[in-house]
Formats: sequence, C-alpha cells, structure tokens
Amino acid sequence: MKKTQHLNLHQSKLNTHEFLLCIFGTGDLGRSLGQRLLQSGYKVVYGSRRPHSCGPVPQGAQVMSHTAAAQSASVVFICIQREHYGFLEQLAPQLKRKVLVDVSNNLRKNLYPEANAEYLQRLTPEAYVVKAFNTLSAWALQNGPSDSNRQVYLCGNSTEAKEAVTEIATRLGFSVQDRGSLSAARELEDFPLQLFPLWRLPLRLAFGLTAFFFFYLLTRDVIYTYATQKKDISFRIMVSLANKVFPIVSLIMLALCYLPGVIAAVFQLYRGTKYRRFPDWLDRWMLCRKQLGLLALAFAFLHVLYTLIIPIRYYVRYKIAASTIAKVKQPHNTTIAWRSDSYYSMGILGFGLYVLLGITSLPSVSNALSWREFSFIQSKLGYLTLFFCTFHTYLYGWDMFLRSSYYKWYTPPGYMLSLLVPSVVLVLKLLLLLPCVDRSLTRIRQGWERTEPQDDSQKSLIT
Amino acid sequence: MKKTQHLNLHQSKLNTHEFLLCIFGTGDLGRSLGQRLLQSGYKVVYGSRRPHSCGPVPQGAQVMSHTAAAQSASVVFICIQREHYGFLEQLAPQLKRKVLVDVSNNLRKNLYPEANAEYLQRLTPEAYVVKAFNTLSAWALQNGPSDSNRQVYLCGNSTEAKEAVTEIATRLGFSVQDRGSLSAARELEDFPLQLFPLWRLPLRLAFGLTAFFFFYLLTRDVIYTYATQKKDISFRIMVSLANKVFPIVSLIMLALCYLPGVIAAVFQLYRGTKYRRFPDWLDRWMLCRKQLGLLALAFAFLHVLYTLIIPIRYYVRYKIAASTIAKVKQPHNTTIAWRSDSYYSMGILGFGLYVLLGITSLPSVSNALSWREFSFIQSKLGYLTLFFCTFHTYLYGWDMFLRSSYYKWYTPPGYMLSLLVPSVVLVLKLLLLLPCVDRSLTRIRQGWERTEPQDDSQKSLIT
Amino acid sequence: MKKTQHLNLHQSKLNTHEFLLCIFGTGDLGRSLGQRLLQSGYKVVYGSRRPHSCGPVPQGAQVMSHTAAAQSASVVFICIQREHYGFLEQLAPQLKRKVLVDVSNNLRKNLYPEANAEYLQRLTPEAYVVKAFNTLSAWALQNGPSDSNRQVYLCGNSTEAKEAVTEIATRLGFSVQDRGSLSAARELEDFPLQLFPLWRLPLRLAFGLTAFFFFYLLTRDVIYTYATQKKDISFRIMVSLANKVFPIVSLIMLALCYLPGVIAAVFQLYRGTKYRRFPDWLDRWMLCRKQLGLLALAFAFLHVLYTLIIPIRYYVRYKIAASTIAKVKQPHNTTIAWRSDSYYSMGILGFGLYVLLGITSLPSVSNALSWREFSFIQSKLGYLTLFFCTFHTYLYGWDMFLRSSYYKWYTPPGYMLSLLVPSVVLVLKLLLLLPCVDRSLTRIRQGWERTEPQDDSQKSLIT
Repeated sequence: MKKTQHLNLHQSKLNTHEFLLCIFGTGDLGRSLGQRLLQSGYKVVYGSRRPHSCGPVPQGAQVMSHTAAAQSASVVFICIQREHYGFLEQLAPQLKRKVLVDVSNNLRKNLYPEANAEYLQRLTPEAYVVKAFNTLSAWALQNGPSDSNRQVYLCGNSTEAKEAVTEIATRLGFSVQDRGSLSAARELEDFPLQLFPLWRLPLRLAFGLTAFFFFYLLTRDVIYTYATQKKDISFRIMVSLANKVFPIVSLIMLALCYLPGVIAAVFQLYRGTKYRRFPDWLDRWMLCRKQLGLLALAFAFLHVLYTLIIPIRYYVRYKIAASTIAKVKQPHNTTIAWRSDSYYSMGILGFGLYVLLGITSLPSVSNALSWREFSFIQSKLGYLTLFFCTFHTYLYGWDMFLRSSYYKWYTPPGYMLSLLVPSVVLVLKLLLLLPCVDRSLTRIRQGWERTEPQDDSQKSLIT
Repeated sequence: MKKTQHLNLHQSKLNTHEFLLCIFGTGDLGRSLGQRLLQSGYKVVYGSRRPHSCGPVPQGAQVMSHTAAAQSASVVFICIQREHYGFLEQLAPQLKRKVLVDVSNNLRKNLYPEANAEYLQRLTPEAYVVKAFNTLSAWALQNGPSDSNRQVYLCGNSTEAKEAVTEIATRLGFSVQDRGSLSAARELEDFPLQLFPLWRLPLRLAFGLTAFFFFYLLTRDVIYTYATQKKDISFRIMVSLANKVFPIVSLIMLALCYLPGVIAAVFQLYRGTKYRRFPDWLDRWMLCRKQLGLLALAFAFLHVLYTLIIPIRYYVRYKIAASTIAKVKQPHNTTIAWRSDSYYSMGILGFGLYVLLGITSLPSVSNALSWREFSFIQSKLGYLTLFFCTFHTYLYGWDMFLRSSYYKWYTPPGYMLSLLVPSVVLVLKLLLLLPCVDRSLTRIRQGWERTEPQDDSQKSLIT
Repeated sequence: MKKTQHLNLHQSKLNTHEFLLCIFGTGDLGRSLGQRLLQSGYKVVYGSRRPHSCGPVPQGAQVMSHTAAAQSASVVFICIQREHYGFLEQLAPQLKRKVLVDVSNNLRKNLYPEANAEYLQRLTPEAYVVKAFNTLSAWALQNGPSDSNRQVYLCGNSTEAKEAVTEIATRLGFSVQDRGSLSAARELEDFPLQLFPLWRLPLRLAFGLTAFFFFYLLTRDVIYTYATQKKDISFRIMVSLANKVFPIVSLIMLALCYLPGVIAAVFQLYRGTKYRRFPDWLDRWMLCRKQLGLLALAFAFLHVLYTLIIPIRYYVRYKIAASTIAKVKQPHNTTIAWRSDSYYSMGILGFGLYVLLGITSLPSVSNALSWREFSFIQSKLGYLTLFFCTFHTYLYGWDMFLRSSYYKWYTPPGYMLSLLVPSVVLVLKLLLLLPCVDRSLTRIRQGWERTEPQDDSQKSLIT
C-alpha cells in the first residue's frame, strides 16, 4: 500500500510541473534524454561519479552524486552501459522502492547470459526495474517521436512502476505498449539489433534465383545468338532479358510460398497427428512465407512495368515498322488472337489478385480481419493467384515445347523451368482436395490422432 | 483487498517461472493451448472428468480431477464446449475468486440466448470470468501469433482478472485489446464467425452488374456482329469486352458509393431534422460505402491494366499494321488529338485520386487522420474523383450518342448506361451545394429542427 | 480509497444494465451523445438550467436541474460550450468526486490561454476531470465508430476516472488511447482543428513548382513553335506537357526530401556538436520530409501512367504511321537501343523503389519496423532511388545539352533544370561518405564535441 501512496504523491506533483526525474550517466544517451525531458517540462537531476567534472549537461539540469540524485527522485533512468552497472549494487539501499528505467542496449545478441534489465533487478532487488525506451533511436530520444519511433515498448514486474513510466513516455509524445513482465526484457533488448531477420532467407533465395536465370538466359539468348549468328543483341539485357528473369523468379517464389503448406499437410497425413512438431527447416520456411510472397509480388510488379513499356521502346518501334508491311498481307488468325488475349487476361487477373494478397499483408489490414477472413484470402485466393499465374505462363509457352528450335544448346527455355515448382504445388494441392484425403486431413487438424502413442510402439514391433 | 493480494502473490511467482495454470478439458483446444503455455514457461495442470483415461496431454502437464486442478491454480482456462458447462455449477465453491478464461466459440450466431461467457458467469457467480483468446485460430493457439492472429481481445467485469489474463497473453507473444465489461462477450464470440459481412452486398452488386453488362455487351458486340455480318469476333471477349465491362461497373459503383450521402441529405432536408433515423436500407447502404468504393477501385485498376496492354496485343498490332498506310494520307486532326488526350488525362487523374482514396481507406492511415482531414479526402476529393471519371466517360462518348449506327438492335451503348447514376449523383450534389439549400442543410446538421414535435402534429391537422 | 469504492460500486451496477450517466447541456452535442448512450444500454439524465423548457431530449432520458442530475450519477458529460462553464463553479460541491468528461472543442487554436479541460478542473478542483471524445465528429458521437472515428483519445489526472471513461467508450464501440495527464488536453483540443498541417508546405511547393514548369515549358514548346513556325500544337498540353512537368517536379521534390539531411550533417560538421539546435527553417523542413517524398511519389505515379498511355494516343499512332515507312530504311542502331532500354530500366527500378519507400511510410508498416530497419530503407534505399531517378533523367538528356537547337530562346530544356538539385544532393552525399568526413560525423553523432564551451570562448578571443 505504501508504494502506491508514494507514487501517487509524485503524480500530483506532476500536475504542478515540478516532477523531478533522475538520470544516472552523463554520456550521450543521458544527455539526449535529459534534454528531451527538460523540453517536456520535467526537472532533471543527473547522478554522476564526479559531479564536478562530468562534462556538459543540458542547460537547466543539476548534477549531484549518485546517492544524492537517487534520493531526490522516485524515477531513475539508468543511462549507463551494462559493464558499469556494478556500482549500483552498493546503491541498492538508496534505490529501494525507486522505479529504475533500464534503457540500455547491447552491441550484439547473446552477449550476456541474462538481459540487462534482469541483471539490474538482480543487483537492486528492492527497486522496481522497468525496461523501456531502448527500442528508440538516439535521434528520437533527443527529438521526440517520428515514424518508426512512435511506440515505446516496456516491461517490468510492478504495475505501478510501469504506469509511472507510461505517464512519462506519453508526455514525451510516445505511445506505449506494455510487453508484460521483466522476462520480456531480452526480447526488447534484441529488437533494435534486428535487420529484417525474416527477410534474409527469401532475399537470398530471390537473389540466387535471379542470378541463376540471368546467366541461364544470357547464355541462351545473347551468347547463343552471338556464337551462332555473330549478331550482337546485348542491348536486350536491359529490358527483354530482365523481363524474362523477373516473371520466372516471381512465379517460382509464389509457388515456394505455397509449397510448405502442402508439405506440412503431407507430413500430418503421414504421421496421422498434428501434435508432433514439424522439422525445423519446414518451420523456418513456413515462418517466412509472407516475405516470400511479398518479394514475389515485387518481381511481378517489375514484370508488369517492363511489359507495359514494350511498345514505347525504340527497338520495338523499329521492329514493328519493319514488320508492318509484311503483316498487312497475312490473314488475321483468330486462334492466335484468342491465345494472346487469354494470356494477357490471365496475367492481369493474376496480378490483380497478387496485389490484393499484398494489401491484406499490410499489418493494419490483417489486424482488421478475422482469421477466417484472412485465411480465406491468403489460402483460397492465394491458390487462385498461383493458378492464374501458372496458366498465364502455360499460355505464353503454348506449343513452344514441341518445337526443337527452342531448345538451343539442348537447354529448355526459361519459362519451362519456372513451371516446374508451381505445377507440382498445384497438383499436390489438388490431390489434397480429393474428398477422402481432405476428410482425413480435416479430422487430424481437429485433434484426431490415427494411432495412440502405445499403439505406435506396438505397430513398430509388429511390422 | 484479498483478491488483489491473491493475484499479486501469483504474479511474483510468475517471475520465478513457476506460475501454474489450469486447463479444464483435454480436447484439441485444451491440448493445443496447453502445449503453447508449456513452451512459454508455464506449468500446466489439466482438469478432467476421468483423470486416468483422458487421452494424451502435452508432455510435462499433469492431469487431475476438476476439483484438485481448480484448487491448485488461480487461473483456469475453460476449454470445454458450452453444452458441457453444466457441471461447473457444482464446482462453483472451488472456483470462487478464480479467474475463469472462457475461450469458447459457437458454430453459428444466435445459437443461444446469452453469450457463453455470460452463461459461465451465471453458473459461477463468484468467479472472475474473462472472455479471451476465442478470436484466435487453433493454429495460432498452438503455434503463437501470426499475421491476423496477433491481437487478443478480452472482456470481463474484474480489472484484476483481466490484468492477469493480459499478462499471460502478452507472455505468449500476443498484444491485448480490452473490450470492456463482460457484456461485450457476445460481440467477441460473433467475431470469428464473420466472413466479410460488410462486403457481401457490394460483392453481390459487383457480380450482378458485371454479369449484366457482360451479357449486354456480348449481345451488342459479338452476337450482333455474328448475326449481321457472319463474322466471328468472339476472341474479343477476353480483353476488349472485359475492358468495357470493368470501367462501366467501376463508374456505377463509385457513383453508388456517393448516392446514399446525397439521399440522406435529401431526407434530412425534407424532414427538417437530423434526429430521426434513416430507413434501414439507407443505413445499411451507408455502412458499406467504403466497400463499394474499394471494389470500384479494384475494377478501375483492372481497367487501367487492360487499357495499357492494348498496344501489345496481337490483334491491335495487326489492326495498326493494316491501317498504317491508310492513315498516312489523312491530315492530322487537332480536335481529335485534343479530345483523345483530354480523355486519357481525365482518366489518369481520376485514377490517381481513386488510388489516393483507397490509400486513405487503409485502417492505419485513416486512424492517423483527424476526421476533418478524413472527410475532406473522402468527400471533397471523392466527388472530384467521380467528376473526373464521369467526364472521362463523356469524352469517350463524345458525339457517339448522335449517330444512330451505335444503337445496334435499338440498345444504347454500354457507356451510356454507365453514365446514368453518376450524372444523377453529380447533379443532385450540385443542387445541394446551392447556397440556400446548403444553408438549411448545415443548420439541420448542427442540431436545428424545422418544427417542434407538437407543431408537427398541428401541421398534419391543418394540411 | 473511498473514491475507488465509489466507482467500483457503479461498475458492478453496470453489469445489471442500470448504469446511470449524466449529461449537462441539451444542445446538439448533448442530444447526439445521449441518444448513443441510450442505444448502448445506459440510462441518461440531462442536467439543464430550465429542466421544464429545455427543448427535446432523446426518448427515454430524464431532464432535471443541474444539481439533481449531478447528484444522481458519478460520471457527468459536460456538453456545454466553454463560455458557459462559469456556473459550474457554484456546482463544485455537488461535483466533488465526480468524473467530469470534457468533450468540448474550440473554433480555432489559441482562443484561450488554457485548455478547456484545465479551465474546468480549475473551476471544480475536487472533481476528476477527463478530456475525451472531442476528437470524434458529431456524426460518430451519434452513430458510433466509423473509419477515422474509431479511436477515442483521453487524458486526465485520475487513473480511476480514466478507467471509468474508458469503460464507457469501449462499450460504445470505440477503442481508447490514454494520452496521459490533463496537461495533454490542449493537444487533444487542437487535434480536430488541424487540416494537414505538415502537408501545407510540401503542397504549396508542389503547386509552385508545377505552375512554374508548366508555364516555362508552355513557352518553350507550344508558344515557341507557334511563334517561329505558326503551328498550333496546343493539344500537346494535356499529355505531352503534363508528362514533362510531372517527372520534373517529382525529381526535384525527391531531392528536396534528402537535401535537409545533408544540410543538417554539414551544420553538425561545421559546429562540431550535435547538441545545438538546428535553425528553425531546417527543423520545419526536416519534419515534412515524409510529405515531400509522398508527393514526389504521387507525381512519379502520374508520370508512369502518362508514359504508359503514350502508344495508345491518337497523336502518337498518327506519328508512328507517318514515320513507319521512313524508319524501315534506316539501319538498326545498337547504341540508341542500349541507351533507350537503360533509360526505361532505370526509370522502372527507380519507381519500384519509390513505391517501396511509399509502402514503408504507411503507419502500420513503419510501426512494425525497428528504427534500424526503417532508416535502412528510408536512407540507404532512398538515396538509391534518387540515384536511379537522376540517372534515368541523365539518360533521357544524353547528349542533348551539346546541341544548341535545344536551347530555344536561350532557355535550357526543363529536364536540365530538374537535374540541378538532385545532382547537388548526390554530390554532397558522396562527399559526406568520404572516410575522413564520415568518421568525424559519426563521432559527433555519438555525442563527441569538437570544442568544450569554455574553449569556444577562448577561440573567439584568439581569432
């Protein structure tokens, strides 16, 4: 009960603009934070080892010894590097019942066995440690919230202490998200270190596929032409070749986005239970499906733009001009018209659905959907997208696979390679949709298990 | 006061990783949830009717009788179907002062007169019932948060109980949104059942309009040509016809998105008050304006893509080639150039604004806008969009309506039909903007009423 | 302690659907709010100066004197204009320990020295004033949440009072964001008055640049042609001219989006510290970089659409037809093909990155990124975008700057003017990336200062 009174006392002071905050450490972090707190109407006192020779502090702030500073305020910001936390153990009596705000970060993950904030709590067991502000950039700490620095995450074991810190963060203009007890501190400390962790695998994959198909098609198109006809068509690299590589990579990555779901279903069917964990590689793959899909969308977007500028290109205008007079004499071919128009139509519809999938991947949109709606779009419409795009590619190929002239140097055209994975995914999905398979799968996903654990052991004895 | 101490006691235990949770029910839901809780560092005890023959539970969990399990923990997850809640009434003494988390859902809406959680509270009046986790998919309960499964909604009458559940949800990686008292339980229980409720009417409308205009134009274009000239141009269905249907549907739906606002204003002017409710059909219509607009945008997007591929199509290349030599001899016509360029320009600007409207419909963007900003964009810029798109269509038609050859089989071309609704909306809006009308409307919307209720009755007597 | 009990008492009543709320004021606001509260299951009593002749109130609500109404409920909504708050001072005894919800707004900013809610708190020092609901439109207050009216912001000094208001707001269907103590009231009261404050400068700039380049190019292209060759090519205004103005404005605005960052770095290098504030103009400029960038993206989007319709235009088809026969005879030029394809490729890649920057500017996306990720995209990829777009423009110009025929009336072509700012920004950025400069800058940004304050004064004495 005492604690609450203590904090309430200060909250009433807050309204008279006299709330005093303490900062331990006069380094860059402490100085930036202090400046911001002063601008927001707080009084700031610094705690320093050498109060008289500690370097400049923001105008209006006082500098005292650690002990004196700690006694003057009920909230203490620890702007010290973790290596120097040691001395706080001696200050533990002065820090009793104080709210200690740990804003520290480490240079890399797993540098220490326990989170900085948990270490701090261990040093000062009777203080209320709150981990906060560490996910903000130094710029945001000094200048206030901006785009990706609007949210302050905090965690700690004392609700009252978290409320006091929330009050301060809100006053500085941030919005606060409570991440629970202090055991979440490690997660918060790892957050600022991350650089697109889930994007790495998909990005590498996209890069690898792009490089492979670029060289493959370079060989087949440009080098082959040069080798056999001594004609330099290297200028086609910039648009024609790019516009072959992008759709191929896009289609393969879209298929790779749906492949793990199919594999997972096969696993569940084979094992007859949903309670056994998938192998690690499948788990990792499933986690980055969204990223795979978004990269596939980016490649599809480039493919669309590259396709749409075709008629403006100098090279194409030249070719049209050259072929115009020839074409006039040919009769109009309805089959070709049907095929080419279906080809474009499938592509456009596929791209339209692709964009829809992308939009529902935006965090605010997917948050607004119930999971039934989300899975309807991402699964049902997702497979429809894959089907449209695959069909679009088949229409592109048409009967090309029959003519040997397309197998230059005995290699199949790039589009054929790109059809492998999507076709496999679509066929497997169709098999899973067969009534008998679908029924088993649904039962397994509702918790049914084919064999009891003991039966399993018996079975292995028998067979 | 006792309750708070009780919960605090367990919160301190939480930090030592010994927090014990109880789950009633060893079905799929209880098993999935238990697995997840164990992975997050909780201890789990199951309550079962037949503790010794209850089927498999996750490794590390204990199974006890309901009574023993309830006594061991302060938070009990009820993973039982509502039909079997009955026995909990006898357990009421053991569940006194416990936090009961109701995670149940029903198979369809309005199956029972009261929400499951309210029924549970009635059975165990001295327990603290919290409705939570029911909006997550079983997959998310077992495997942790993913895209549309990040938010846990909860409601309940006890703040402390909600805090305890919030702590658990946060620890499992979810973010929590408090939806208030237990009376919100029904809303939460209906949430997972919904499948785009507000999208149904607009989707049906879009489908109906598309089908109607498809067959209308199929008759006028393909069948008419075949009937009168014996020429098969059915290949035009895939692109040319689609590219007529899509803009028509888009324009009509955009106009339908602004029509209810105009009708509502007419209602208010006619009734002389804003306090009387609109008829139900108008209310429903107004609620799905956003969905109408977004579908209109999707159709416009397809129209843009279908238009942009025109010059790449085989059919068009063929036609250009055939007409090239003829065209060279004609003199350049400045009027046609002006008209065609204005036509494209209006279309592009209209589409640009369309996209802007779509972007501001994204939840995170519209949340960041003040309503004055939002209504500026959706109303002012919305009407501008409608004007651009309508003008674009008029420019397309130009003097076509004067030539009788366009009225095949006495039917007007599709674009004329599409102009009806938008023109009506724009004319009505212009009338509402007349100073005298606008003044009355503004006064009504500020709360002024033309006649007092009693006057109203007098008036009806006199006239 | 008493207060809490008081509120809890009513919370338990809430569950029996008997919670009574009081509204002071029977004007439009009070009436709309009352209607909504009644629909949500609350009982409503109005406080009025003239309870017997106060105009219509929603059906089901009672009207009493202010004193009687205040005594009947523990939460009082003040739906009175600030000018009439005076009488509340006499009611202060009756309002003691009541939660007063201030929903008022002003007609313009800075109309009064203190926020309405703070004024109310001063009049009734023993009441718990909460500022809330004022950011909603009257429409939302009457009809419930809609797109930009989903969030209720509130602030106040009493946590319990804020919880009571949160409960009500949640029940009305809104989601609540706590903005801290009552000192945030002014900010909340200014919020509904704002109309794109950060967009004004960028919009004016965009408008100014567009107007300037429109007239500049009109003179150079249309008027010059008319003056020298008596040929009317005014029809080119709609597309050709627009498609010159849009990319120029887009490129300049993109460069202006990165210029302030470079200038800030130069300031920091020159001053040798990061703790001195930037001049006001630079601060303002840096704050609206996002808006500058998004407008630049909008112009780039229009440029893309205007470019893609080129081959469909009547004028272009005419020109192609006229030049087809001539072109057939020219030999194919590989250099031109390389240049034109690179030109398109750079443009597409630049636009793709542009779109990526736009997507990461969406609030929900930038919230999901750590600041390290956000700054990677907005800074690294941003400069890459600027480079692609600038290079695209250089490729467009090619050797045009060498030929005097392009300097009509001694003015340079528009694209040259557009290259000035981006080139300066890119060169400055390259200079800042030089190892020696980069090292100093990094040290300064980590808190290092070149000269101590006292040294600074000495230095000024010496030199």
